[in-house]
Amino acid sequence: MQFDIVTLFPEMIESYCSFSILKRAVEAGVISVNTVNPRDFSLDKHKKVDDTPYGGGAGMVLMPQPYVDAYESLADAPNSLTVMLSPQGQPLNEDIIRKLAGFDRIIMLCGHYEGFDERIRTIIKPYEISLGDFVLTGGELPALCVMDAVSRKIEGTLGKIESAHEDSFSNGLLEYPHYTKPREYRGLSVPEALLNGNHRETEEYRRTESLKRTKARRPDLL
Amino acid sequence: MQFDIVTLFPEMIESYCSFSILKRAVEAGVISVNTVNPRDFSLDKHKKVDDTPYGGGAGMVLMPQPYVDAYESLADAPNSLTVMLSPQGQPLNEDIIRKLAGFDRIIMLCGHYEGFDERIRTIIKPYEISLGDFVLTGGELPALCVMDAVSRKIEGTLGKIESAHEDSFSNGLLEYPHYTKPREYRGLSVPEALLNGNHRETEEYRRTESLKRTKARRPDLL
Repeated sequence: MQFDIVTLFPEMIESYCSFSILKRAVEAGVISVNTVNPRDFSLDKHKKVDDTPYGGGAGMVLMPQPYVDAYESLADAPNSLTVMLSPQGQPLNEDIIRKLAGFDRIIMLCGHYEGFDERIRTIIKPYEISLGDFVLTGGELPALCVMDAVSRKIEGTLGKIESAHEDSFSNGLLEYPHYTKPREYRGLSVPEALLNGNHRETEEYRRTESLKRTKARRPDLL
Repeated sequence: MQFDIVTLFPEMIESYCSFSILKRAVEAGVISVNTVNPRDFSLDKHKKVDDTPYGGGAGMVLMPQPYVDAYESLADAPNSLTVMLSPQGQPLNEDIIRKLAGFDRIIMLCGHYEGFDERIRTIIKPYEISLGDFVLTGGELPALCVMDAVSRKIEGTLGKIESAHEDSFSNGLLEYPHYTKPREYRGLSVPEALLNGNHRETEEYRRTESLKRTKARRPDLL
């Protein structure tokens, strides 16, 4: 999977990719990450990339020329999807992550501080994804979340110590409670159903707890 | 606002805090960020922090002792909230962000790769927040999102070039389209209502477009 990130802060993406799962996925050759900075495409002598909004109001708006030119500098590739990270997009969920994992290349468009000039949307026609109903300063953290969640779905990323298929949402429910050593900690014991080696009882306990937890915390998922 | 982050990957938090809005908020003295690593509290000679789950299954589980000890090493402070980042929590939204911004200190508990031993929840009783219905490798990216979104709400963080109050969701709707220079780009013009200097017409255009966009993309918000 090739990730191309259009961003005014390439170092945010690059530094995070030197850690944890993204680092491992890059090293394993499962993903590759490339950034392109609209500032390098500004025709303005001060390398300006934003300006005040027509119609007035606070905030700055990303100008179409540097952004579209940066985007168009990326070579075409088959089975590619262009994603804009924006609070106006579809809220990210596991279904979307699974769909994204089916592409060979994902281009992600990040804004920062300000909004996109609407013509960037009109020209590029990206698929818009929102991390959720809250506002962040830029699209970089959402892009990193997408890269992390998608990379987990690609074979070769997760090692033996992790598992994608028993996570929350993979069966539409929240996960059951986990317990590890010691058997007793500060007077709190591991439930008997997990200790007696009876596989059916363990499964039954986990299914019941998973349902109970989902009902209590996220009845909207049921 | 003091942020204390319990994490096995403190460098993920620290490196991101050297960029953009978090860097500025730290430099302005609006927020301060501290990390604590459960690995430093492991009583195991190999500094082990996780072990296999009781009852079997893939994945590792964070042991209660190093984690709870790391948490308890943090001094008490007034008006403080402890948050666990977990797919099992309440989905993050602007209401939650606004509430968090009212505290003086937020402690965030991040897992990584694996789940928390349930007794960590039982003992610490954190408020649980989920970034959304998708699975990430760790709580670090969600913690950074919370820090970014909360910091924006604190006076002194956003400068003149940005504005928090006109963002998406601040009035329960998606934002209207933005336009900046040039007036015409690749044959696409800025709408007349934003150019004629008629304040009432601009407001009317923006309100209409904001509603139209919300209806088309996120009817659930109406």
